[in-house]
Amino acid sequence: MSETVTVRQNTVVAAVIGLGSMGMGMARSMNQAGLDVVGCDITPDAVDRFVANGGRGATTAIEAATDADIVVSVVVNAAQTEAILFGPDGIAGTMKPGAVFISSATMDPAIARDLSRRVEACGHHYLDAPISGGAAKAASGELTIMASGSRQAFELARPALDAMAAKVYELGDAAGAGAAFKMVNQLLAGVHIAAACEAISFAAKQGLDLDKVYEVITASAGNSWMFQNRVPHVLAGDYTPLSTVEIFVKDLGIVQDMARAERYPVPLVAAALQMYLAASGAGMGRDDDASLARIYALLSGAKLPNTSGGSLA
Amino acid sequence: MSETVTVRQNTVVAAVIGLGSMGMGMARSMNQAGLDVVGCDITPDAVDRFVANGGRGATTAIEAATDADIVVSVVVNAAQTEAILFGPDGIAGTMKPGAVFISSATMDPAIARDLSRRVEACGHHYLDAPISGGAAKAASGELTIMASGSRQAFELARPALDAMAAKVYELGDAAGAGAAFKMVNQLLAGVHIAAACEAISFAAKQGLDLDKVYEVITASAGNSWMFQNRVPHVLAGDYTPLSTVEIFVKDLGIVQDMARAERYPVPLVAAALQMYLAASGAGMGRDDDASLARIYALLSGAKLPNTSGGSLA
Repeated sequence: MSETVTVRQNTVVAAVIGLGSMGMGMARSMNQAGLDVVGCDITPDAVDRFVANGGRGATTAIEAATDADIVVSVVVNAAQTEAILFGPDGIAGTMKPGAVFISSATMDPAIARDLSRRVEACGHHYLDAPISGGAAKAASGELTIMASGSRQAFELARPALDAMAAKVYELGDAAGAGAAFKMVNQLLAGVHIAAACEAISFAAKQGLDLDKVYEVITASAGNSWMFQNRVPHVLAGDYTPLSTVEIFVKDLGIVQDMARAERYPVPLVAAALQMYLAASGAGMGRDDDASLARIYALLSGAKLPNTSGGSLA
Repeated sequence: MSETVTVRQNTVVAAVIGLGSMGMGMARSMNQAGLDVVGCDITPDAVDRFVANGGRGATTAIEAATDADIVVSVVVNAAQTEAILFGPDGIAGTMKPGAVFISSATMDPAIARDLSRRVEACGHHYLDAPISGGAAKAASGELTIMASGSRQAFELARPALDAMAAKVYELGDAAGAGAAFKMVNQLLAGVHIAAACEAISFAAKQGLDLDKVYEVITASAGNSWMFQNRVPHVLAGDYTPLSTVEIFVKDLGIVQDMARAERYPVPLVAAALQMYLAASGAGMGRDDDASLARIYALLSGAKLPNTSGGSLA
């Protein structure tokens, strides 16, 4: 290791906390861009795989972050992000002074503002930087990042952002804006997946040729990014999780909580969330989110391709 | 007129019943393609405008249809379509034997099947042919048509279809399929407009830069054809009707009625329909359908661009 350290003395050191399908791709993208990347994860196997691919591994977040100029947090939600920073083994007190913490989890903007304030109080910088694009784009370093934070946070984060993203939206000089833009996107994405499933199973219920429905709708005013992306899973009867039902149980839950606090009615989000809850409650929480189509089919007797059919009766 | 008749002896004669924003464009497109087009409308002024643009006028549907090889019905709904055919002054008994009736109104597929059966019993042909694309595409002869019907109905209708449409989807050999595909499209379109309005006013409630929201979302997974098309109306504060709230009160109402009859639950359609009803009930029924954003703003205090603001209190 000493040789590597010598060679990389002027190299930016980045820690990635969370080596799931997104974090692994982001860590490798930074590695390939020439950063010295240290990864850690609660699953030792994930760390081993990253090390086998040329990264450095660490067993704890504190160890990973100790020499890092940039810490990229790629965990599931606000609670895990807070635990990484301020939990019993949190890094807020042990990070290198003046380093930047890049937070990529989708969360309520109010929490992003609070975490930013507390991280800055410890002498570090905070970039509110939710990500979009999925595992494939993470692996190729072509994510979309919706970011906000101080000028200095952006400057310090730049080598990581350049390595991970095809597009970085700079959405404001304070934490919260990035999170808020992400929540607007998730509101639409979550409703559109549910609408796509409501529509394709409705077409199945009427006995229409579903491949033809896909062809016509994707060329018509009823199209959405999500209809185009998710309906092929239904047509193939393949619910292998590319993005799970539980993600939108979480994200539409955040939208609903935000909206309730702000006294803003969200009838479409509320209706869609019930369908994600139904899918999760029916045992499909870890399946692909296109599984909502199977719930509509179960509730109506519609026949979808390559599914066992199934019945609630 | 006699000279014209002589010149056009081998010309296909088409009647257009209903010269609204769609029908006028369709009639002119057929005229420009060399068909001999007779237009009629309950508004004499519309007929005068069509005649001033080189068409022929008629005062009643019976008069318009009497010599027509093709009758194109461009009215609002199933009830008007049935009245044209089988009402007190209906054309079903007076149409030229063997002519084709092209029905473009959005309607329940079961009604389309019933009308087709009754028209065929009178010795004519019926093409179930809902249209999509809006007034501009109608004027340029570039509509999308979702059609089903017998081979003979398609053959007879071909000169009209070629003149009116950029794309004709041939969706089956019997009436009903065209209507069903259109309803699937309307389900999605209606839900997506409501989702776009729910999202953009939610962004406004949080004080986000709405032009930036539009830029980010249209490049992200939250995008839809309708978000991209309708949100600019909200950003401009311009609710001049390009397509009215009442259209989706009607079309989501049809979807809900179909779904109820089939015992198919449509929670997203149900939620969206309530918002169209709220907009209509608040006096915006004849405004642009992006007016749903104004309802969300009224219900939450969100501030949208160039609106008087308004308050329910």
